[in-house]
Amino acid sequence: MSKKYTVGIDFGTLSARAVLADIETGEVLTDAVFEYPHGVMDTALPSGLPLPADFALQHPADYLEAFGKTVSEVIGKSGVPTCDIIGIGIDFTTCTLIPVKADGTPLCFDKRWENDPHAYAKLWKHHAAQPEADRLNEAAAKFAPQILERLGGKTSSEWLFPKVMEVLEKAPEVYENTAYFIEAGDFIAWMLTGRQTRSYVFASYKSLYLHDFGYPPKEMLKYLDPRLENVLEEKLSAPMVYTGEAAGYVDSLARERFGLSADAPWFNVGTVVACPEPDAHCAAPALGMSRSGDMFSIFGTSSNYMLISDEYKIIPGICGVVKDGLIPGFNAYEAGLCCFGDHFAWAAKNICTAEYREEAKARGISDVQLLSEKASALAPGESGVIALNWWNGNRNILVDSSLSGMFLGMTLRTRPEEMFRALLEANAFGTRVIIENFEKHGVTVERMTAAGGITRKSPFVMQTLADILGKTLCVSGYLHSSALGSAIYASVAAGGHPDVTTAVSAMADPCNTVYTPNPETKEVYDLLYKEYLTLHDYFGRGGNDIMKRLKKISSDVKRGTK
Amino acid sequence: MSKKYTVGIDFGTLSARAVLADIETGEVLTDAVFEYPHGVMDTALPSGLPLPADFALQHPADYLEAFGKTVSEVIGKSGVPTCDIIGIGIDFTTCTLIPVKADGTPLCFDKRWENDPHAYAKLWKHHAAQPEADRLNEAAAKFAPQILERLGGKTSSEWLFPKVMEVLEKAPEVYENTAYFIEAGDFIAWMLTGRQTRSYVFASYKSLYLHDFGYPPKEMLKYLDPRLENVLEEKLSAPMVYTGEAAGYVDSLARERFGLSADAPWFNVGTVVACPEPDAHCAAPALGMSRSGDMFSIFGTSSNYMLISDEYKIIPGICGVVKDGLIPGFNAYEAGLCCFGDHFAWAAKNICTAEYREEAKARGISDVQLLSEKASALAPGESGVIALNWWNGNRNILVDSSLSGMFLGMTLRTRPEEMFRALLEANAFGTRVIIENFEKHGVTVERMTAAGGITRKSPFVMQTLADILGKTLCVSGYLHSSALGSAIYASVAAGGHPDVTTAVSAMADPCNTVYTPNPETKEVYDLLYKEYLTLHDYFGRGGNDIMKRLKKISSDVKRGTK
Repeated sequence: MSKKYTVGIDFGTLSARAVLADIETGEVLTDAVFEYPHGVMDTALPSGLPLPADFALQHPADYLEAFGKTVSEVIGKSGVPTCDIIGIGIDFTTCTLIPVKADGTPLCFDKRWENDPHAYAKLWKHHAAQPEADRLNEAAAKFAPQILERLGGKTSSEWLFPKVMEVLEKAPEVYENTAYFIEAGDFIAWMLTGRQTRSYVFASYKSLYLHDFGYPPKEMLKYLDPRLENVLEEKLSAPMVYTGEAAGYVDSLARERFGLSADAPWFNVGTVVACPEPDAHCAAPALGMSRSGDMFSIFGTSSNYMLISDEYKIIPGICGVVKDGLIPGFNAYEAGLCCFGDHFAWAAKNICTAEYREEAKARGISDVQLLSEKASALAPGESGVIALNWWNGNRNILVDSSLSGMFLGMTLRTRPEEMFRALLEANAFGTRVIIENFEKHGVTVERMTAAGGITRKSPFVMQTLADILGKTLCVSGYLHSSALGSAIYASVAAGGHPDVTTAVSAMADPCNTVYTPNPETKEVYDLLYKEYLTLHDYFGRGGNDIMKRLKKISSDVKRGTK
Repeated sequence: MSKKYTVGIDFGTLSARAVLADIETGEVLTDAVFEYPHGVMDTALPSGLPLPADFALQHPADYLEAFGKTVSEVIGKSGVPTCDIIGIGIDFTTCTLIPVKADGTPLCFDKRWENDPHAYAKLWKHHAAQPEADRLNEAAAKFAPQILERLGGKTSSEWLFPKVMEVLEKAPEVYENTAYFIEAGDFIAWMLTGRQTRSYVFASYKSLYLHDFGYPPKEMLKYLDPRLENVLEEKLSAPMVYTGEAAGYVDSLARERFGLSADAPWFNVGTVVACPEPDAHCAAPALGMSRSGDMFSIFGTSSNYMLISDEYKIIPGICGVVKDGLIPGFNAYEAGLCCFGDHFAWAAKNICTAEYREEAKARGISDVQLLSEKASALAPGESGVIALNWWNGNRNILVDSSLSGMFLGMTLRTRPEEMFRALLEANAFGTRVIIENFEKHGVTVERMTAAGGITRKSPFVMQTLADILGKTLCVSGYLHSSALGSAIYASVAAGGHPDVTTAVSAMADPCNTVYTPNPETKEVYDLLYKEYLTLHDYFGRGGNDIMKRLKKISSDVKRGTK
């Protein structure tokens, strides 16, 4: 029998990457990366139309182009006969939500809607629907408290319903003309198979779907807005698929939907399309997650902490717990920081001086690398600067996107690298808050594995995390963990392996580098962490709601009502 | 009778400037500026020896050179016969303290001491003596509560006694070999006259001297350290001189003490040297202060708020109240922000990006100007960022140099100009706190006049101050107000006018530009000010002493004890 292969494609915030993997060994034969031409649209639409505060949109045309180009490239370069490519796995940022027509065409492709921000894909980190999230929380507490209980105590403005409600309220015409609101990952599967499905995992984590209760009750939706009473049947309904299952099969029109020429390398009609998965989840199989207490993290623009456990507990302030959500047979917990590497990118853009830029250029390194290197020369606690890492709000465990960041301890001697280090340490303190919250509620973290761009680029960041968490961190050396994970899920959906655990044993990537906590820094970091916690609770739990008030003032001023 | 003239020389933090003025009209014939070659030494001594945290030293050789050069220049350029120059006025930063030998030679001129930081001039903003200030506060509360009552409730680490105590404790050999600790302003007078005196104004504001009690009692000094019991007689004693009086007369050796060649333009032997004054005070006569309720401010690296009033009140948290301290016949109140323009300089150094630097260069403006211009394009409250302006601690009304600064409201969209604007607004909020504190205690501010570099360079800063204070600000167009004020005081000391009020009427510079509060911004600024006050009290009055703890951790780490 010939060797069999699957393709995994991982859609991140700024780019997509595909791999073609051997299902016996996990060996990746080829990979390809494509950056979205429109990137993240947070200040203006392609036409130049300015966007309101807290918007983060994407252009779905970028997704189609990214899929077509990277897949053609990995298949073409590999020389593997397409009949031996048995499955396709897709993972995507979530909740990234596209309003589409009945045939799946995104509304923004239509001239009529191209100047309406609400017709575009709302990226996971679109935060303009906070008022809707607040109302949703209130309604859930009244009609379906079990939702809040399972999903960390609060729903987030990043999730599906607030985004749908925002369209209904701010752009009712767009709402009316939207046949379906669909997760971008499900959208890609639809474009491949010609058949709409809904991933159980997206629905469970971002659409308030509970395995034992289903979606929110009708009366709750009606209470939010009478026009929402039948939104489930009208705009969200489609057969549900589960991890390790097939969403469908590549159909004969798929190539055309992705705008590929007839001679571009492509899948055979009939190739299995696996149930789409959240992007961060897909590193789980790639990093060998298979025991209760295994946690893995992806460190990129944001960071995710995924934990599998035999225990099923209700834990406040996390993104949620989902039965069979990650590796079938385990309960999967998720939490995350909605801003991790984005803090460093902010620093490079805003506090990297002309002298530093020049030095980085002369040495052929990036601004972030230079700031990071200078920061690494400091001792913990030396700068006297501490930060709250909430530049993009707080996802866990406060679940409040209207929080904002702070630097404290500034003096006339404070240098950019000290602010940079404070941001890094605050990222790690925020991670520690999440882990301690799991453990306080009876779900222990036994092993930590990490992947994502930052794990390879910055040993300093990884060591600081290990030091502040007081835990050993295993880092995968492999560049495209999520894409490999998608290929692993695809191997199960396509029948190449009997179940996910078996596929993981065969295909997972081994741990490459181990970061061990340095006991010498523990005492100082414990002191700083205590300070962090005090600020975290004071500004994050109602001691002083100044951050919300400042955002309100800012948005009133921008709207001209102040 | 020929026209008569006086020379005023103003010693600032980074440079000195001299003017030669007509005593009938106040017209300034010539001026000259000299930057201190050693500037502020806050990281290393001239030998390269690194300095501990919170040090700010100067080299007294710079003062002598600055005096000699600027005075020669103003006299030389003016063509005025030296017999018509009847007086010299000196103003200086304070408390800037020099340890000197019995003949007035600074200890650091001696090879033996040139590598000891404690042998140099400790600049007003030297903050390493905070532990000593804390002990002094405790001792004063026990032995001489009237001191605390008069001088704002707390003594500052910037003042004379903490600086003396620091030398005694950290460098006892320097202490033993110091014949006198002398204010730099009194030092210059001594170098001119050959006779040591002490300015009543320096002593009143910075050495805990009260007009009705004198210096701190012996038992209090002994309690602090037995070796300090006789420090007044041993190292601080000299005849006291008052505003408008002569400290002495230029003697035949003065030219030599300033290192001037025989042909450099110079004063006649016998020219009157006026009582030295604090630098900020000297703008008072130059700006025409003469009525109860007149306040003037100098906006430079730091800012001072000087108020004259018929009322004598005890006001907590200010620098102090001194009878006849500014304009004889009034009670003079002083308060200030120990970091004003320094915040902007910090921003230019640390958060001006390469792109901004390039733009500033291309347009031929400074980094501060560019940041300020971009900040001025924002609406109040638009950025959502607020700051605590404590980069250099808080002088008033919290009197605590161990406080530090903060930015709050940071997001991924926050730009350097938003941080810059937050610093500016926080400077203005800090000013409002001071003014409201005066008014709450029964001393009203009727008129505000401003001078200093920033008043001319930045109409935006002045307008923001007027808006946030809700008060009209008169700004003098004249560049060297303090130097002119010194020339005015000198005209009285030399008998050219019968008293300061008369001299002010003749010589003061008229108000040049008026900034009127914009009522449209009031509502937003009042909201932001309320937020500022909450943070001010929480971090400044014991709600959360994190700033002190972070400084402690930092200094422990640097000392290697953590």
